[in-house]
Amino acid sequence: MPLVQITMLTGRTADQKRKLATRITDAMVEEAGARREAVVITFLEVERESYASAGVLMADKGK
Amino acid sequence: MPLVQITMLTGRTADQKRKLATRITDAMVEEAGARREAVVITFLEVERESYASAGVLMADKGK
Amino acid sequence: MPLVQITMLTGRTADQKRKLATRITDAMVEEAGARREAVVITFLEVERESYASAGVLMADKGK
Amino acid sequence: MPLVQITMLTGRTADQKRKLATRITDAMVEEAGARREAVVITFLEVERESYASAGVLMADKGK
Amino acid sequence: MPLVQITMLTGRTADQKRKLATRITDAMVEEAGARREAVVITFLEVERESYASAGVLMADKGK
Amino acid sequence: MPLVQITMLTGRTADQKRKLATRITDAMVEEAGARREAVVITFLEVERESYASAGVLMADKGK
Repeated sequence: MPLVQITMLTGRTADQKRKLATRITDAMVEEAGARREAVVITFLEVERESYASAGVLMADKGK
Repeated sequence: MPLVQITMLTGRTADQKRKLATRITDAMVEEAGARREAVVITFLEVERESYASAGVLMADKGK
Repeated sequence: MPLVQITMLTGRTADQKRKLATRITDAMVEEAGARREAVVITFLEVERESYASAGVLMADKGK
Repeated sequence: MPLVQITMLTGRTADQKRKLATRITDAMVEEAGARREAVVITFLEVERESYASAGVLMADKGK
Repeated sequence: MPLVQITMLTGRTADQKRKLATRITDAMVEEAGARREAVVITFLEVERESYASAGVLMADKGK
Repeated sequence: MPLVQITMLTGRTADQKRKLATRITDAMVEEAGARREAVVITFLEVERESYASAGVLMADKGK
């Protein structure tokens, strides 16, 4: 029954999410004994001005 | 003081959220002894390509 | 497919959680058109020193 | 290594988020002994119809 | 910079979490172009009375 | 109305959380125009075997 919530920057394609969903679900089933039907994955996507590391917004990095 | 975070697919109307907010808050007050003023509910809505179950994106189901 | 994450103080009984799970799931099905089997509810319980409102820990209130 | 997830109404500017990121990261480093590089902050912004307190949507308050 | 929060029932061993961390991080790097150092995974583990699906606590299933 | 959820390793004292709650609430009020009474902060604390970065559990680092 694992719930997997992934927070990341916007910009990934549906195909990237599709592959992530497959691989992460496989891992939950094979390593944690989860039932495949019970694995739920959600992607929360945020803009570069809504994500900071080390106190700096991603929107301000690389400037 | 309960915080209730609901992750669901986009597409619900404001009226649906209004009714959910009422009923869930009532439940928290009546069953868990929460103060009404302290119950906070948030809805995080994601697209069908950002929600997977059993390893398959919702966007790919029913195809 | 709604996922409902409830963060609250420790101390509720299993029976209180049982009733919350029933009522919240009913609300999701009846008001939001969710499939009953797809509604998942999790309770994250925290101690009074791990919950603050208005800048004050619950552990410090009522002193 | 703290992860800080902030859920709030839409409408804050990038500059407000920038200042929040700075001050919250400083607090985590100075008060909790976190390494600055390991502090991650995300902002999840929701509309007024997706946030309720005391059972009432923000969109319905002040009417 | 993905953050991966996994909510699951208690009972998995450190070795199971180790393998999940490796495989999920690999997936984020290989499929989503994430920097390995920026992938953070957290496991939130809840008891069977704190997890419900279809309106029924896990603690009540299989009885 | 901001909700601030902080996920970090166990081991911080109540006094550290108290100071974090004060400073983060002050920042939300002063920088984001939040009402003080509406700021809620929760701390989710996880063990070193439940937190990984760069694919490695904290429990395995520094060995």
